Amino acid sequence: MSLLDETIAAVLPPDKNARAAARARLDQLAMPYWALGRLMDLAEELAGITASAKPAVKRKTVVVMAGDHGVVAEGVSAYPQEVTVQMVANFVAGGASINALARHVGAKVVVVDMGVAGDLTHLGQAIIHRKIASGTQNIAAGPAMTREQAIATLEAGISVARELADFTDVFATGEMGIGNTTPSSAIVAAFTGADPAAVTGRGTGLDDRQLQHKIGTVKRALEVNSVSTTDGIDVLAKLGGFEIGGIAGLVLGAAALRKPVVIDGFISSAGALVAQALCPLATDYMIAAHLSVERGHRIALEKLGKRPLLDMDLRLGEGTGAALAMHLVEAAVRVLTEVATFEEAAVSRSAG
Amino acid sequence: MSLLDETIAAVLPPDKNARAAARARLDQLAMPYWALGRLMDLAEELAGITASAKPAVKRKTVVVMAGDHGVVAEGVSAYPQEVTVQMVANFVAGGASINALARHVGAKVVVVDMGVAGDLTHLGQAIIHRKIASGTQNIAAGPAMTREQAIATLEAGISVARELADFTDVFATGEMGIGNTTPSSAIVAAFTGADPAAVTGRGTGLDDRQLQHKIGTVKRALEVNSVSTTDGIDVLAKLGGFEIGGIAGLVLGAAALRKPVVIDGFISSAGALVAQALCPLATDYMIAAHLSVERGHRIALEKLGKRPLLDMDLRLGEGTGAALAMHLVEAAVRVLTEVATFEEAAVSRSAG
Repeated sequence: MSLLDETIAAVLPPDKNARAAARARLDQLAMPYWALGRLMDLAEELAGITASAKPAVKRKTVVVMAGDHGVVAEGVSAYPQEVTVQMVANFVAGGASINALARHVGAKVVVVDMGVAGDLTHLGQAIIHRKIASGTQNIAAGPAMTREQAIATLEAGISVARELADFTDVFATGEMGIGNTTPSSAIVAAFTGADPAAVTGRGTGLDDRQLQHKIGTVKRALEVNSVSTTDGIDVLAKLGGFEIGGIAGLVLGAAALRKPVVIDGFISSAGALVAQALCPLATDYMIAAHLSVERGHRIALEKLGKRPLLDMDLRLGEGTGAALAMHLVEAAVRVLTEVATFEEAAVSRSAG
Repeated sequence: MSLLDETIAAVLPPDKNARAAARARLDQLAMPYWALGRLMDLAEELAGITASAKPAVKRKTVVVMAGDHGVVAEGVSAYPQEVTVQMVANFVAGGASINALARHVGAKVVVVDMGVAGDLTHLGQAIIHRKIASGTQNIAAGPAMTREQAIATLEAGISVARELADFTDVFATGEMGIGNTTPSSAIVAAFTGADPAAVTGRGTGLDDRQLQHKIGTVKRALEVNSVSTTDGIDVLAKLGGFEIGGIAGLVLGAAALRKPVVIDGFISSAGALVAQALCPLATDYMIAAHLSVERGHRIALEKLGKRPLLDMDLRLGEGTGAALAMHLVEAAVRVLTEVATFEEAAVSRSAG
């Protein structure tokens, strides 16, 4: 059995007993019924995910998957490809937004080279090296990668989840890759059947003309590559990116390990859709961090069946929205485990 | 000059230079333009509020104003009045939701007895004692308090802000008071002109019949007490609560001290509306934490001109939503002060 098949087979439904135990406790807390709303929903979910009425959520890791994209040749990004390498250096130096926000929630940032177009070996153990190739092929002209490479990206993501599991209670997805909103739009269009224009946005800042060109590029990618939308590996291979496959693998790995994984923005959601296609049960282990301003994210979240926790007009990626949402994950567990019940606090109940 | 007048006179507009300096830095950060959206808006606001391009936000205090309400005689709450006293004890013991969530953001919880119907002197220095009276009068039958008492609640709130200022960079409002959604609905209806039915909700959990009765009670309060809606003190005196006046005073005090004040839910927003009526400039110092499920909160926030940071279906009060939002306040400042610019990080800029 391959690592991928083994991992998918290991994903079980959330634990009903732990969920029920959490709900029973939440129902007794000294407050009007379910008065902390979505924080309590989240606490209940986390109990199911972790199979514990006292879910462990303290040790947090944001995994930033990095990769480059052949489709940048079409002029779909406002930034040059070299920025991917430069931003990886910025992550390692601790100066990027994800570093600041991860520090704020006490999360570790782990960068993975999934397929950056540039040599990163000099970074040594400062990052995890899983380079599949130096950037994908141009999806507007053919498949992004071979089927074997697609499986390799997924298994790399799984291996990263396993490697980090010893010191991680909660994972968050993040990514860096100039041009990666274009394959993400193509993936979301493929899985949801949405019109490319409805799921293609301005990315890092395109003007109207550039946006029309990008929509055309996504359309071409979908025409050139006839994908089988029931085959997650096929969609990933033809329309994907190495970091998007890495995210999908990380999600599968986390789900198999019964650990929650906070999904960042649009690109992370494209990866999550690949994971969902491969293993619908894995969806229950995902927590949607926020609604991005990137057009198409709402449609991707609907397909995942997730209501995002935050709506802060973010469109940066890196895992920034997921880092912010990790605070809410911990807050939910605080409510479940630290708030006194009516009885414990000697507070009178509602007459109703 | 009275403490109230002196405080209102001391509220200045946010500092334009600090705001501009913050904006200039945010514009240079190594990311697509304004890609952290509302977090960057918030950082800019905080710079204006604190008159610093490096706003201090580390020391956080949630002030929980407690008071009781004569209108509970009308049967507008699902809980008995004794719960106010019991919950104050729970706050002091550290077992309430606000304690758990304040611990999570590293905020101190300070409880103020503004007018609880019960003797709390035995709590000594565990709380701040500013009791105006043992609960207000029934607003369905006449004014909640005298004009002198209303001024005293505002000045008590101001004095609390001053007392806590030495170890507080960011304030949050919170409250406890069985029955306090009813005066809050009356206040919001008065200031906005909204129909009582549009701003009266289920509070701690009323059924349909009880809700209709509560709407009727709010209508009666507005009929019995003809308020001058341009006179914040009159609205507070006739329709208010001691803790609502305390919140309004705290907001004014914080604004005069150039400190941001995070406004919690519906009741806190009623207090904020009183502060706005007394001193429109104080509105610039308020940060709206979240959108409550309590009906009418949206209307109150519109009148304040605020878009809430969170939307988590909360309806607890205590300051719980404000505590959660304090994390975003600090995150905004992290972005402003810790993220490297394009130049510092040696990252190539957009061609656009």
